[in-house]
Amino acid sequence: MSSNLIVQKYGGTSVGTIEKIKKVAARIKRMRDSGKDVLVVVSAMAGETDRLSNLARQLSDHPERREIDLLLSSGERISSALLSIALHAIGCPAMALTGRQMGLVTDNTHTRARIKHIHADRAKKLLNENHVVVCAGFQGINELGDVTTLGRGGSDTSAVALAAALNAEVCEIYTDVRGVYTADPRVVPDARKLNMVSFEEMVEMASLGARVLQIRSVEFAKNFNIPILVRSTHDEEDQGTWIGREDSDMEQQVVSGVIYDKDQSKITVRGVPDQPGIAAKIFGALADAAISVDMIIQNVSAEGHTDISFTLQTTDLNEAMPIMEQVAKEIQAVDVSSDSEIAKISVVGAGMRSHAGVAARIFRTLSNQPINIAMISTSEIRVSCIIDQKFTEQAVRVLHDEFHLGENQVSENRSSEGGLKTTSASK
Amino acid sequence: MSSNLIVQKYGGTSVGTIEKIKKVAARIKRMRDSGKDVLVVVSAMAGETDRLSNLARQLSDHPERREIDLLLSSGERISSALLSIALHAIGCPAMALTGRQMGLVTDNTHTRARIKHIHADRAKKLLNENHVVVCAGFQGINELGDVTTLGRGGSDTSAVALAAALNAEVCEIYTDVRGVYTADPRVVPDARKLNMVSFEEMVEMASLGARVLQIRSVEFAKNFNIPILVRSTHDEEDQGTWIGREDSDMEQQVVSGVIYDKDQSKITVRGVPDQPGIAAKIFGALADAAISVDMIIQNVSAEGHTDISFTLQTTDLNEAMPIMEQVAKEIQAVDVSSDSEIAKISVVGAGMRSHAGVAARIFRTLSNQPINIAMISTSEIRVSCIIDQKFTEQAVRVLHDEFHLGENQVSENRSSEGGLKTTSASK
Repeated sequence: MSSNLIVQKYGGTSVGTIEKIKKVAARIKRMRDSGKDVLVVVSAMAGETDRLSNLARQLSDHPERREIDLLLSSGERISSALLSIALHAIGCPAMALTGRQMGLVTDNTHTRARIKHIHADRAKKLLNENHVVVCAGFQGINELGDVTTLGRGGSDTSAVALAAALNAEVCEIYTDVRGVYTADPRVVPDARKLNMVSFEEMVEMASLGARVLQIRSVEFAKNFNIPILVRSTHDEEDQGTWIGREDSDMEQQVVSGVIYDKDQSKITVRGVPDQPGIAAKIFGALADAAISVDMIIQNVSAEGHTDISFTLQTTDLNEAMPIMEQVAKEIQAVDVSSDSEIAKISVVGAGMRSHAGVAARIFRTLSNQPINIAMISTSEIRVSCIIDQKFTEQAVRVLHDEFHLGENQVSENRSSEGGLKTTSASK
Repeated sequence: MSSNLIVQKYGGTSVGTIEKIKKVAARIKRMRDSGKDVLVVVSAMAGETDRLSNLARQLSDHPERREIDLLLSSGERISSALLSIALHAIGCPAMALTGRQMGLVTDNTHTRARIKHIHADRAKKLLNENHVVVCAGFQGINELGDVTTLGRGGSDTSAVALAAALNAEVCEIYTDVRGVYTADPRVVPDARKLNMVSFEEMVEMASLGARVLQIRSVEFAKNFNIPILVRSTHDEEDQGTWIGREDSDMEQQVVSGVIYDKDQSKITVRGVPDQPGIAAKIFGALADAAISVDMIIQNVSAEGHTDISFTLQTTDLNEAMPIMEQVAKEIQAVDVSSDSEIAKISVVGAGMRSHAGVAARIFRTLSNQPINIAMISTSEIRVSCIIDQKFTEQAVRVLHDEFHLGENQVSENRSSEGGLKTTSASK
């Protein structure tokens, strides 16, 4: 519809108090007064989702996922109603919409549902009637009419999906950081904010644990070519970080950032019979439980048996272990063990496509410390290593230095690579 | 459907903490294990509705009613999800349903909607599948698909309406008091719990400020002849108070209880031209705003002008005053004033129908104090007086004594009326 539409998403810290909600309302009103249509997506007030989760956990170690979705989705309903009230109070017509009312239909996978389609008729009508539409993030409904949620960070995905459904100009993500950084500034003090990141790089960064955006939101944005602007709620001067299509005007560095993720665990199944179909059994059982597996290593077979190790999110570990123990019994493996004291360190950069030797440089840098690498995975624009969790910060710092990513090192960074300004065609 | 169905409603204090939710779950499970089908209606956890209301009030003096409904209804969604999780945790299959999922359709009057119909197909199906159905009280949806709420105490009405729709045996209302009393025990220490109250008496008592039940729930129960049992969540021994049809076996006292309501205010419009249609203008404007008026007095006309006074809930006063000022201007009245320092004292009893002189006895008792009576209204089974608020407790006590309603006065009560055991036909 309107190509005059801006979608804005405000995270939990941006609407964490009544004062902050008032500030957000004022900001939205300024955008609307400048002539734009505005659709807003809000997260729950900071701390609310954790508060509700804790209540459930006091009642049950394994609360029903359907009921958890009903419970947690209340947080966003509350913040959306409050923001709508705040907008009315300053003379800005607004209406809050729940997941159902915004027509966000998902599949049936409670607590991590995927969006199937959006029937945005009501939002469209309200925008045409000059309302600011305030959507409760993170939630949808399945075809039974039950509430579903999109997983941690799901409000980002709500926002981008609504931006795509309504053909918005841009999806602005307001958060408590100024944008996307070359590394976590808490770990690397001279980490630099990036002005522009490609969708491809951001997908890698998001999936690797840079908590700025939920990965699915970036995939959505990429598929529908919706530019995302990540910026600070508090610092209106800062221009934030654009996430968009790579194009020939983009200045590409070999490496854009170094990311770590401590919420990774490793499961090892030992003494697996080396027969066809065994891997399918192991990973099929996890897929049935909607548990995502990241890296997989299979040892060389010895005497018809092998060991299989894989990594997954630590939050899924408690659910995955009984499944794996069951599978291990069925396939007559020796045993199953887990290790949550690991971390994944990743180096991402679109320029890797045209520059060889980045992986070797990473391995050398880590081994010089020395930091042992337990598993490795790579993509066209990323190299990831699993290491002992206690070396996380050290690894991030030495890699950030190695690729000269710091505030005062931009020129060095380029020169050390011998004139890095490449002009790759857009993909 | 099932005549084996018990509907239970738990108020906010009954589910106010995780520990209390666990206790309620255990109680529900015992009922179900005894062979009953159970549908539960829950209020928000104690304090939650006020917390949410306060957030809204910090943002706006007049928050949008539609958004308030979305906001406040979250409280019951949270408690219903938590109770369902608690039931699962003790091995009792359960499912939480929102207003929409339980098919509770209301009119469009946000914050005090009336139930139009209930499509209880999903609840029926779940009960047939042996689930405990946990319904979020207080809420429904209108035909636009927006969330509506049924007003303070609306969960009672949700419970009785669901009991009617599903043809339940009984609707049990669990609360923090042991039942319905002859007077507020905080005011009258020897107030006595009643074992049985007729629908008609309870309608009068509920509408007069006895906070045990929302009046509309009793009207619903009366219309569909659903017996209500009000009982304590904490004291499982106590048998509570039954509310049902009057029948010839019922032992009737002249007076069943003395009720007070301090949340009353009086509005006076002075110098109203004494012309046809003026009262319709005044009360039509209030009705349009869905504000209920209770007692009305019109002075004798002098020189073509009169004064009109009426009472209403104090919570409606802020909304009513600007409406009345507007109307006063239109009808060229002299001025509008309000007084919130009043109280309504009422004496209720089905036996009044067959006993004359009760009203005179009330007026004499109050005047002996002396307490001045500003307004009077009566029904077949009730006499109400508006007095100065500061005499509230005194008035309740002297009337309670006058009709011998106390713990140790039952026989006296009867004898003083000369053999009160009447056998009126059921109405």
